[in-house]
Amino acid sequence: MRPLRLNIAYFHRESMIVTASAPGKLMLFGEHAVVYGYPCLVTTVDLRVSTTIERTQSGTIDIAPSLPGEAEQHYLFTLDEIVQSNVIFPKAVSFVASAIAHFFRRYNVRSGLHIMTTGLAKNYGLGSSSAITVATIAALNALFNVQLSSREIFDLAFAVVLDVQRGTASGFDVAAAVYGGTVYYSKRGDIIEPLELPAPSFIVGYSGEKVSTTDYVEQVRRLYQQMPTLIEPIFALMTTIVEQARLALHAGDHAEIGRLMNINQGLLDSLGVNTLSLARPIFAARDAGALGAKLSGAGGGDCMFAIADDDARGAVITAMQSAGCEVLDVALHTDGVCIDT
Amino acid sequence: MRPLRLNIAYFHRESMIVTASAPGKLMLFGEHAVVYGYPCLVTTVDLRVSTTIERTQSGTIDIAPSLPGEAEQHYLFTLDEIVQSNVIFPKAVSFVASAIAHFFRRYNVRSGLHIMTTGLAKNYGLGSSSAITVATIAALNALFNVQLSSREIFDLAFAVVLDVQRGTASGFDVAAAVYGGTVYYSKRGDIIEPLELPAPSFIVGYSGEKVSTTDYVEQVRRLYQQMPTLIEPIFALMTTIVEQARLALHAGDHAEIGRLMNINQGLLDSLGVNTLSLARPIFAARDAGALGAKLSGAGGGDCMFAIADDDARGAVITAMQSAGCEVLDVALHTDGVCIDT
Repeated sequence: MRPLRLNIAYFHRESMIVTASAPGKLMLFGEHAVVYGYPCLVTTVDLRVSTTIERTQSGTIDIAPSLPGEAEQHYLFTLDEIVQSNVIFPKAVSFVASAIAHFFRRYNVRSGLHIMTTGLAKNYGLGSSSAITVATIAALNALFNVQLSSREIFDLAFAVVLDVQRGTASGFDVAAAVYGGTVYYSKRGDIIEPLELPAPSFIVGYSGEKVSTTDYVEQVRRLYQQMPTLIEPIFALMTTIVEQARLALHAGDHAEIGRLMNINQGLLDSLGVNTLSLARPIFAARDAGALGAKLSGAGGGDCMFAIADDDARGAVITAMQSAGCEVLDVALHTDGVCIDT
Repeated sequence: MRPLRLNIAYFHRESMIVTASAPGKLMLFGEHAVVYGYPCLVTTVDLRVSTTIERTQSGTIDIAPSLPGEAEQHYLFTLDEIVQSNVIFPKAVSFVASAIAHFFRRYNVRSGLHIMTTGLAKNYGLGSSSAITVATIAALNALFNVQLSSREIFDLAFAVVLDVQRGTASGFDVAAAVYGGTVYYSKRGDIIEPLELPAPSFIVGYSGEKVSTTDYVEQVRRLYQQMPTLIEPIFALMTTIVEQARLALHAGDHAEIGRLMNINQGLLDSLGVNTLSLARPIFAARDAGALGAKLSGAGGGDCMFAIADDDARGAVITAMQSAGCEVLDVALHTDGVCIDT
């Protein structure tokens, strides 16, 4: 589950090149409420992003991001440029460059670097920004032999993400990328509990619509300000769902998990983040025999997931596809960040 | 608003034939919660059902229901048959026959009757059963000069509906049919407050799907039993929505009414009573500029409604139609039961 610790020893020998990878995440329960410090449950997805960092004598930071099927691009920074605070990095490398800047400043190291990152061809809203940040910090950690704990990697990565996203991140996807498996996350990272449970067998579908998480977080914030007496209790209900879902996941109680998914889905609809492109496969999955289905993440598009017993699984997958969904062939509850070389 | 009182005087002369009509209803806020005694807001719709009752010397009760475009049918009962308790009347005349039975027993009157009822070609889930019950009791009241108050008509009609529906009715549609206008209804009829407000200008759409209210009420009851710690607070939230909506309707605050509709819609979805046939026109209406949209009634089909400012109204109607809805040309907040001849 946490191979990071195990592998670090290897890098006590002065490696000059390190590759780290980190998983994407699927939000299970508690999205939106988590922005305000309420708990959520998040699991990892075996769609991984990776960062390869090589120490160089060049005196420059050369960041070369690439996506599958796309040409590598290069972004060059001097060491001075990278460690300046208040610098706004180009969007394509903002998380990686900011991770290096934070790492250099906090641990007072400096070196020329050549960095290659590989992302996902499609993001799917599965949290690749947080994952690439975590992978970058883990690689730097190994390369400079700083021996950060998982908690320290989380803290630094969360600081980076908050910096890049101007304070709107809640950090649960950072925790998922660091710890792996399924994580109970609360109080903006004060509580991070990796859960020992049977890997959940959700069917994950991508709605085909890619949206801005930040826009939907902002939209909910406005609604919260307008209707606090209604939205606050909805967050409280989401919290109850998270606590009950945690028990149901432990028990492997699919019927209960399904009921909780359906109720959580309605509460997300009440926040205004549900759309027809999500509702269509959600209703289709339930009609085909799923025990529950809900959107995952900020809403407005991206992913949904369903739970079904074995006998209904095939029909649910077909129904989701017929309803316009790309069903993703992903494993869940997979390893957190690790060093791959 | 309450023309019943005004017209009763006319029938102090011994009329031998009376026609009464009562309106259908549109549930605005609080459906399902109302089953458990929580408050709701309901308005009347100018789709009316009517009952014409003639006293005869025949010693029989002849009930002839007809729907627009359909041939009249006749159901004959002896006076003894009609006043027996525990008799199950044919479905087509169950509310009318039961209303006569209750009325005869409670006020100790007997007479041969010829009764013609006209219903709606389509029910739309707008409460024609309760309306026909109320119209029948109002007609009997006039015919036998019993001088029932509105409250007494409600109590008797609610008893009839409970009897026919084996206890599953909540009575709000009976109250709407009796009092007319827009009614705040709570505690299973202990509180009935007709509201003086500007008539709401909702756009009402029929989803095309006709479902059994009773099935959906039962489905929610099962969920309530399974998940009381979640469903109870959802009903509490619906109560807050009803109270806030009452103020917003008084103030004519369309934006606030719309927000409350959207939140209530999500809560209904969380109870499992939303469907794609409802969600489709609801999303379409919002996308076309509606300030809010929600289903009306037990869910699973039947009606939804939207609120829009004048400049968006046309686009919202078109969008709802494109999403598979029949937009109903109905006035709301109309008169309650009245004597028409």
